[in-house]
Amino acid sequence: MNKQLLFVKRPIGEADASTWSLETNPIPEIEEGQILIKQHYVSLDPAMRGWMNQGKSYIEPMAIGSVMRAGSVGEVVASKNSRFKVGDHVAGTGGVQQYSATDGQGFYQVDPRIAPLPTYIGALGMTGMTAYFGITEVGKIKEGDVVLVSGAAGAVGSIVGQVAKIKGCRVVGIAGGADKCSYVVDELGFDVCIDYKNENVATRLKEECPKGIDVYFDNVGGDILDIALTRLRMHARIVICGAISQYNNKLAVKGPSNYLSLLVNRATMQGMVVFDYAPRYAEGAKILGGWMAEGKIKAREDIYEGIENFPETFKRLFSGDKLGKLVLKVIED
Amino acid sequence: MNKQLLFVKRPIGEADASTWSLETNPIPEIEEGQILIKQHYVSLDPAMRGWMNQGKSYIEPMAIGSVMRAGSVGEVVASKNSRFKVGDHVAGTGGVQQYSATDGQGFYQVDPRIAPLPTYIGALGMTGMTAYFGITEVGKIKEGDVVLVSGAAGAVGSIVGQVAKIKGCRVVGIAGGADKCSYVVDELGFDVCIDYKNENVATRLKEECPKGIDVYFDNVGGDILDIALTRLRMHARIVICGAISQYNNKLAVKGPSNYLSLLVNRATMQGMVVFDYAPRYAEGAKILGGWMAEGKIKAREDIYEGIENFPETFKRLFSGDKLGKLVLKVIED
Repeated sequence: MNKQLLFVKRPIGEADASTWSLETNPIPEIEEGQILIKQHYVSLDPAMRGWMNQGKSYIEPMAIGSVMRAGSVGEVVASKNSRFKVGDHVAGTGGVQQYSATDGQGFYQVDPRIAPLPTYIGALGMTGMTAYFGITEVGKIKEGDVVLVSGAAGAVGSIVGQVAKIKGCRVVGIAGGADKCSYVVDELGFDVCIDYKNENVATRLKEECPKGIDVYFDNVGGDILDIALTRLRMHARIVICGAISQYNNKLAVKGPSNYLSLLVNRATMQGMVVFDYAPRYAEGAKILGGWMAEGKIKAREDIYEGIENFPETFKRLFSGDKLGKLVLKVIED
Repeated sequence: MNKQLLFVKRPIGEADASTWSLETNPIPEIEEGQILIKQHYVSLDPAMRGWMNQGKSYIEPMAIGSVMRAGSVGEVVASKNSRFKVGDHVAGTGGVQQYSATDGQGFYQVDPRIAPLPTYIGALGMTGMTAYFGITEVGKIKEGDVVLVSGAAGAVGSIVGQVAKIKGCRVVGIAGGADKCSYVVDELGFDVCIDYKNENVATRLKEECPKGIDVYFDNVGGDILDIALTRLRMHARIVICGAISQYNNKLAVKGPSNYLSLLVNRATMQGMVVFDYAPRYAEGAKILGGWMAEGKIKAREDIYEGIENFPETFKRLFSGDKLGKLVLKVIED
């Protein structure tokens, strides 16, 4: 049987157990051209909260009653498609379910001998691609830049900062709590990490970046974006990757009051969506994979188990009660 | 004698009569290397309000007791500088005073046979340069783009829209009141102009730009910026030139709540300051001057008289009670 998590109610504010319904259905029969994937792991990402909203966005809103959209990685267990054979490992957007039948569109083969499967929905998946293309192509980092990264202990932020270090930047992270900050500096090699839960971010940022910042990679929005705006150097770039502080708002998003710093500093604030770099994922994965093999980039997944635990696990994205990439194992090996 | 308007008090909120003090002093004696300019006209610009604030900006804040900073155009009446001779007409930043003694730094010669003097602090001065370089270099307009311009009847906005029309764009203006909107469409040739005082901007924008906008040139900030953000097309560019709706705020600036539209649409919001284009002013003036001579660009100055009327005239920038470039004649010919 196939356990599937259906999206049944659009949340207002935080998603909770009533947002989803767990159903058990027969494992689908595949048709000509399809494959059946046994999905070991699914990805949990803040962006999912946005997909639940009605209205125009960078991707179609999820339909009520559909399988919860999610990145996934697993093994082909049946194939009527010449691109894939039984035993292949594949990643794609298979949704929160134990088995998915698909024509293979958007799925690609991964190699578990090179990296563990969860890494392919993390540092070598969308998460890594977001970080790599975001900081290099949108942030346009160059050697000597001062780079600020919020969500520094998170899935994307942790890679962003490590890429910036490799490229010769001074990298300042922002994360919540002393443990995360230690991880960011001691394990990931950021130059410094500001603990927004226990330190005054504006004061610390002034101390750590006395001449200001060249690039701010924003995963959080809200007050931290506003503080970062006060410290821009001339021609600074702000990469708008996400705004996790705002995703559960029941009312309006908090706009950045200090946006006129863009004018004063001839700075740029630019939004990004990783899908635009799809034609270059192979290139990005090769580069990141190389750095991982050399030990220059460390990636950590925080793995929970049980498809029935999806709603509780999902909350960790917003409570911050996790370290690195959040992953759920939805079926036994 | 030389009447001079001194900046004597930093305003909180709107500037008023107490912000300045009119003094009468002897006409300065020039030293070796200096020129004395009889300043016929001074420029009134929203940016002046920003210069009055303490704190870091793109230009030094004005010092208390200094002559009110302003663009100016006039005639050289004495010269001990080989770059200029008596009778030359020059434009620069001479301040709100009838005579200025200067080493000529930042002043350049203008020709009153080509255009009337006030035009050199308007369409052929900083105003025109802001519009031209802002919409072409920062807005990166190309043929077929849908371009939205706020402050469309104003000094900068009116030129922005006309340049965009010349470049083959569809141009939608936003202005306050039926008279201004008629001027923008009938005289300046914009495709349409939305009257924000009497129309619902969001509704009208949807009607006029059903597929969204490629470029928004923002002179006003506030609610109109937020509405524009809801109508962005993919890869749209927002040029942050000013935010007149926010300059007199006593509390925080209203940040754009809809800024995550930048992410959804992979759009860019970029600030500009005209001074960065100083090396290219001659190029800009030649192009704009050519278009004016061909009748493709119309520029209008709204000229008031009397240096003592500066405070009252200044208010017109914010009340909107003016049409085109606001200029004050500060001395009789």
